[in-house]
Amino acid sequence: MKNIGTDLNFVEDGGVTSPKGFKASGVCAGLKKSGKPDMALIVSERPANFAGAFTSNLFPAAPVQLCRERVLTQGHATAIVANSGNANACTGLEGYKNALRMAEVAAQELAIPVEQALVASTGRIGVQLPMDKIEKGIRAAAKALSPKGGAEATAAIMTTDTRPKEVAVSFQVNGKTVTIGGICKGAGMIAPGMKVPHATMLCFICSDAAIDNALLSEFLADAVEDSFNKITVDNDMSTNDTVLVLANGCSGAAIAKGGKEAATFKAALSLVAEQLARSIVLDGEGVTKFISVEVTGAANEADAKLCARAIANSMLCKTAWFGCDPNWGRVLAAAGYSGAKFSPESVSLDYDEFPVVRNGMDAGTPEEQLAEVLKRPEVSVKLDLAEGAAAHTIWTGDISYEYVKINADYHT
Amino acid sequence: MKNIGTDLNFVEDGGVTSPKGFKASGVCAGLKKSGKPDMALIVSERPANFAGAFTSNLFPAAPVQLCRERVLTQGHATAIVANSGNANACTGLEGYKNALRMAEVAAQELAIPVEQALVASTGRIGVQLPMDKIEKGIRAAAKALSPKGGAEATAAIMTTDTRPKEVAVSFQVNGKTVTIGGICKGAGMIAPGMKVPHATMLCFICSDAAIDNALLSEFLADAVEDSFNKITVDNDMSTNDTVLVLANGCSGAAIAKGGKEAATFKAALSLVAEQLARSIVLDGEGVTKFISVEVTGAANEADAKLCARAIANSMLCKTAWFGCDPNWGRVLAAAGYSGAKFSPESVSLDYDEFPVVRNGMDAGTPEEQLAEVLKRPEVSVKLDLAEGAAAHTIWTGDISYEYVKINADYHT
Repeated sequence: MKNIGTDLNFVEDGGVTSPKGFKASGVCAGLKKSGKPDMALIVSERPANFAGAFTSNLFPAAPVQLCRERVLTQGHATAIVANSGNANACTGLEGYKNALRMAEVAAQELAIPVEQALVASTGRIGVQLPMDKIEKGIRAAAKALSPKGGAEATAAIMTTDTRPKEVAVSFQVNGKTVTIGGICKGAGMIAPGMKVPHATMLCFICSDAAIDNALLSEFLADAVEDSFNKITVDNDMSTNDTVLVLANGCSGAAIAKGGKEAATFKAALSLVAEQLARSIVLDGEGVTKFISVEVTGAANEADAKLCARAIANSMLCKTAWFGCDPNWGRVLAAAGYSGAKFSPESVSLDYDEFPVVRNGMDAGTPEEQLAEVLKRPEVSVKLDLAEGAAAHTIWTGDISYEYVKINADYHT
Repeated sequence: MKNIGTDLNFVEDGGVTSPKGFKASGVCAGLKKSGKPDMALIVSERPANFAGAFTSNLFPAAPVQLCRERVLTQGHATAIVANSGNANACTGLEGYKNALRMAEVAAQELAIPVEQALVASTGRIGVQLPMDKIEKGIRAAAKALSPKGGAEATAAIMTTDTRPKEVAVSFQVNGKTVTIGGICKGAGMIAPGMKVPHATMLCFICSDAAIDNALLSEFLADAVEDSFNKITVDNDMSTNDTVLVLANGCSGAAIAKGGKEAATFKAALSLVAEQLARSIVLDGEGVTKFISVEVTGAANEADAKLCARAIANSMLCKTAWFGCDPNWGRVLAAAGYSGAKFSPESVSLDYDEFPVVRNGMDAGTPEEQLAEVLKRPEVSVKLDLAEGAAAHTIWTGDISYEYVKINADYHT
C-alpha cells in the first residue's frame, strides 16, 4: 500500500474485489467478434446498499432504464451483470425484456432475488442481444466467480479501451480497514453530463463500508461531478453511461452522516472516481497527451464551464495539441465563441509554467519553448478571464489520426 | 449563361468581377511561406452602397472591428483590401493601427477617401502584420487591377482551401441585366453563428444593382442565415469571419423595397451565398462527402437547431460517415444529448431514400444497403422527431485523417 497523504492509501493492484466480501469474474460469451471476454459479473456475499448515476441522454439504454428503477425502488443490490459488445440501446420493449432476462438469469445462478441484480451493457447501439449467448455467458460467469476476479471483470467490459482501469483506496475507521475499489471502461463517446438518477462509460465501485443509500447517493453525486463530469474525449454523450456503487458492510465499519469517517469515506470515493476518470482520458481513443483545461477568473460558474468545455472540445485546439503547435489563437478563439462573458483585452493564458498570452496578446515566450512544453505527456492550459472568482477545470486529450481510424472502422 | 429556373441565370465562369463596374486583382505580398498569392483588392469604379456581416466571436480581429465601424458610420464603400497568411487577430492596438494603415495605403493608391476602404484578413492569429510587405503588396495589387481579375482575387484569399470558390448570378430588371457575383474562402474553423453587425470565412459579393444600404443589409442578413449560418465543418468559430457586399448601381437598374425586382434580387443574393456556403463545406478540410442534416418534426425552431447542430458536429457521426458505416445509433445518441425535447420511441431516421429507424428502432433496411448509400458524395441524413412542425437543416462534411493532418501541421 502506498500512502497518499491524509488518511488514504492506494491498494497495490487494487480493484473491485479489493474490499471484503466481493467476488467477480469475466468470461467469453461470444458477443465480440474478436473472441475476447465480454461478460462480467460482480457479486457481494451479502445484500449491499447501493447508489447509481446514469446518462442524461434522451435515449437511455434498456439496462440504464432497469437500473434507474432499481435505484428508485430497491433497498439493496447484490450483483452487477455487465456485457460488452452490444449496448442494448434503441432496442425497444424487446431490449428491455432482454435486460430483465439478464437480471433473471444472474439471480437464478446466484440464488438471489431478481430485484437485487443490476445490469449494464456497452457496445453497438440498435442491435438486439443474442440471448442464447448472453444466458450461457452469465451462467459461465457465475461459475467463474472468484475473490480475485476483479481484473477478469475489468477485461470483460472493455471495448475500444487499450488498458484495464482499476483502482482501490483504503483507510482506517476505529481500527477497521475500509476499502473502496472500482473498475471502469470508456475511451470514446465521452462527454460530461451525467446526472445522479450521463458516455459509454461504465464504472462499478464496491466498498465494504456500511453506509446507507441516501448518504452513498449524496457522496456519489459529488464524486461524479468532480470526476466523470469533468472529462471529455469527443463531446459525444452515450446512451449507456452508468456508475454503480455497492457497499456491503463486510468491513464492520459504519459510516455515519456528519462524522470524520464520513468525510474520509467521501474523500476516498471521490479519489477512486477521479483516478478512474483520469484513466479514461489517458486511454481516450487516439489520445497522446492529457490536457487539463483550467479556466479561472470567470464572472460565474456557468461562464467558467462554458469556456472550459469550448476549449476542451475544440477540434482546432485538440489537433494543435496533437501537433505540439503552440497556436494559442485557437484557444482564445474557442473562449471567444464559448458564450462566456469577459473582456478580450484582459485575458491571460499559460501552458504549465510558461506565460503565453498577457492582456489578450502574445506574452513573448519563444514559440520553440512553448512547442517543447506541448511535448509533455500532461499539460495544463490555464486561461484567466480576469472577470471574477469562478473557476472550472475540464480534463481532455488531444485528437490524433488514431481517433479517426478507430471511429471510422469501429464495428463490434 | 445557364438558366436555373425562376428568373435567375448562373453566369459562366462568373465571380466578383462579373457585375459591371468592378475590377479586382490578386498578387504575392510575401506573407505566405509558400510564395502563393496573398493580397487581394476589389474596387468599384464608383462609390458603392454596402453592407456587412461579421463574426460574433468575443475576439474580433482588427479588420473586423474596422469594417464594423465602417458599416455603422459610412454611407459608401469603394474598395476591399484583403490579405491571407495572417489574421491580424489578438494583436491589440498595434493590430488595429495596421488594419487602418492597410485602408490608408489602398485609399492613396486608388485616390479614394480612406473611409471608403474596407479591410479583411485571414491566417494565423496573434502575430503582427509585416507592414512593409503589406504596403508593397497593396501597391502592387492596385497596379494589377483588371475587369477580369476576380479569379486572381479569389486565389489570393485562399489558405487551406484546395479550390477557388466563385459564382455569379444574373437576372433582368426592366430590360437591364443585373449581376451579383461573389467569391469566398474557408475550409476550417467553420461553424454557424454569424450576426449582421462569425469562422475564418471571408466572402466578398459585388453587384451592379442600385439598392440602398438598409435594404441590402436586410437581404444580406437573410442570405447569411440561410447559407453561411447553416454550415459547420468543425464547430470552431473564427475571429475573422466577414461577409461584405458592395452594390454600385452600374447596371442602371434600381431595386426598390417591396417590388418584384426586390424579391428577385433577394433570391439572387441568397443563391450566391448558398452556392458559396456549399462550396466551403465541399472544400472543408479533409471532407470527402457532403452531408445535409435535416431535422423535421421538432417542437420548435430552437429544438430543431440544437438537434441538427449536435448531429452535424458529432465526431462519432462524422467519423462513421467517413467510414461509410451506417451506425445510426450515433445519430440518435447525438439527438438524445442535444437538449431538444422529443419522445425517443417516436423518431424516424432516413439516409436519402432509405428508412433507417422507425419508432426509435432499426427499420430493417440491410446494413450493406445503407453502407452503399453512405458511399455517395452527397447524403441527406433526415431525422423526424415527430413532435411538431419545426425544421432545421445544417450542411456539413465527414471528418477524415486529412482533417487531423491539416490542423496538426498548419502553420502559415
